[in-house]
Amino acid sequence: MAELRQNVVTREWVIINPERAKRPDQFAERKAAETPLPMSDPDCPFCVGNEHLTINESFKISDGGNWRVRVVGNKFPAVENRGDRVRKTDGIYRSMTAVGFHEVVIEHPLHNMTMALMSDKQVADILMAYRERYREIRWDDRVEAIIIFKNHGETAGTSLVHPHSQLVATPVVPSQIRNRMEEAIRYFDDTGECVCCRTLRDEMSAGERIICENDDFAAFIPYAALSPFHTWIFPRRHSSSFDETTDSEIPGLAKCLRTVLAKLYHGLNNPDFNFSIRSIPTRELHVEYFHWYLTIVPRVTKTAGFEIGSGMYVNSALPEQSAEFLRNIAVPASASAA
Amino acid sequence: MAELRQNVVTREWVIINPERAKRPDQFAERKAAETPLPMSDPDCPFCVGNEHLTINESFKISDGGNWRVRVVGNKFPAVENRGDRVRKTDGIYRSMTAVGFHEVVIEHPLHNMTMALMSDKQVADILMAYRERYREIRWDDRVEAIIIFKNHGETAGTSLVHPHSQLVATPVVPSQIRNRMEEAIRYFDDTGECVCCRTLRDEMSAGERIICENDDFAAFIPYAALSPFHTWIFPRRHSSSFDETTDSEIPGLAKCLRTVLAKLYHGLNNPDFNFSIRSIPTRELHVEYFHWYLTIVPRVTKTAGFEIGSGMYVNSALPEQSAEFLRNIAVPASASAA
Repeated sequence: MAELRQNVVTREWVIINPERAKRPDQFAERKAAETPLPMSDPDCPFCVGNEHLTINESFKISDGGNWRVRVVGNKFPAVENRGDRVRKTDGIYRSMTAVGFHEVVIEHPLHNMTMALMSDKQVADILMAYRERYREIRWDDRVEAIIIFKNHGETAGTSLVHPHSQLVATPVVPSQIRNRMEEAIRYFDDTGECVCCRTLRDEMSAGERIICENDDFAAFIPYAALSPFHTWIFPRRHSSSFDETTDSEIPGLAKCLRTVLAKLYHGLNNPDFNFSIRSIPTRELHVEYFHWYLTIVPRVTKTAGFEIGSGMYVNSALPEQSAEFLRNIAVPASASAA
Repeated sequence: MAELRQNVVTREWVIINPERAKRPDQFAERKAAETPLPMSDPDCPFCVGNEHLTINESFKISDGGNWRVRVVGNKFPAVENRGDRVRKTDGIYRSMTAVGFHEVVIEHPLHNMTMALMSDKQVADILMAYRERYREIRWDDRVEAIIIFKNHGETAGTSLVHPHSQLVATPVVPSQIRNRMEEAIRYFDDTGECVCCRTLRDEMSAGERIICENDDFAAFIPYAALSPFHTWIFPRRHSSSFDETTDSEIPGLAKCLRTVLAKLYHGLNNPDFNFSIRSIPTRELHVEYFHWYLTIVPRVTKTAGFEIGSGMYVNSALPEQSAEFLRNIAVPASASAA
């Protein structure tokens, strides 16, 4: 039953080994019973009433006097919007000032809310905040790439429970993104086609790895998924940069993302997860070969020495079974707005 | 204080951000008091007396009637030594039979032993077992790469506590290894030198990131370490493949590895860690551009959405401070043989 599969987008080979595996529902989080979170926490800097504890608000969506989504500066930034980008070389040692942007998107006023339980409209507000910040920051001269991501739960690296995501704009193109571009260019030069458009067409036609879809977006488990329930959401229209997403496409992305997160939440007992948006470096405009996408990685297994030593992954779930399991998890068409 | 640094071997940029950080000793594992492990566990398949619970013993070092190190087959192998390597292509979908080797190195007869507390001689036995299995398996026609690794502790992915490490031989070259080779070739073509030899020479001369060294090996924190206490051990003699290590070099590697692990054990309260050996693909023999090494990754921080989305890391410790901290941790010259 075990086989190796290659991901045509990343060219990475993955060992798909369901013989070691469990049924899909056995990946569900087995959490000790937790005290439910309060709707508001007086010590939480992201809660309503504590806005003075945050810095550098850069974006807000409000309803009358109440905010629905806020974007603020990270108080412990990995890179800072201060000073010039200066490179230094000393023999083999290359360094650079850590300039850039590190912002926090506060996703909801309620302390105990989570994206899986939000309305599509609320998720659309969050995505709109991502896009507006992306659209502004991309023009900063010091920025080469923008990474938008979310850490949900402790094993996924969260320290604050109030629902939030982050945006980091870096002064270099990460080498992994550069590698993906090179592979995509090679595929385009060979075939005249975007490798993601081709993948999406074949996945839609095969159907067995699709989780959900609408007119503008589709969510599926990649053929060579790195881990159980590893999910990609692709825009159906060819688009290189996340900020090309139009106002009329945002609701489709919101629906698709919220549906996948709700299926994970209900099907796997609110597992920890990360998601991130992989977009083209900011100096590039629309190109034919590169397609942005959103990747979701539920933290239901651990990476270990084999992955660290090789960069290869062992996935103990069959992607077709993971997709079927998620397809069959019923979730509300849209959660009621909070 | 924060800066970006590039690793010249991997070409990866890392955000070094000690402003977010703690003192080195604050990375120490804060474990709940644990019941000490017994010296032997009747249910453990790796304990003395339970040899019949293991399969396909392929190597053993014995002392009179007692084994010191054993190598056996993994009962739940990721890849199997069975059948041919067969590739299949169906449009964009590429797959291959999961052939290869997946073996377990049982490092010590005692259930509660750990490499950090072993004698140099015992660690040398383990390394000898690695090398002998590497030397045999590399000639199998179906094998392209051999990854030797160890998972220590639950967050590092261990399921069995009895001290053991693993060897996986894969039927493809992992793309990460291929990328490293390409970078190394480019460096060699540009400069006529192995990038690792150059790095080692500069690190020995700078000294500030060195942890320990002897005639044959040196351990240091890379200039652009991915995470706190991320450590590389390089052979000082240029060598492409781990199995080129000679009988007379094994003790130096054992001493260097045991010393680093003992410093981590005593300085950071037995943290979970992974290590792995990065060696050239098995079809290559000695080449001038590629240098094998051993990489140790203590699991003292978590990777999150930023790393998943970009492949870039944020290291919250200054490599020079991590190295100084480990240099100053006193450990026995060689633990007494058990």
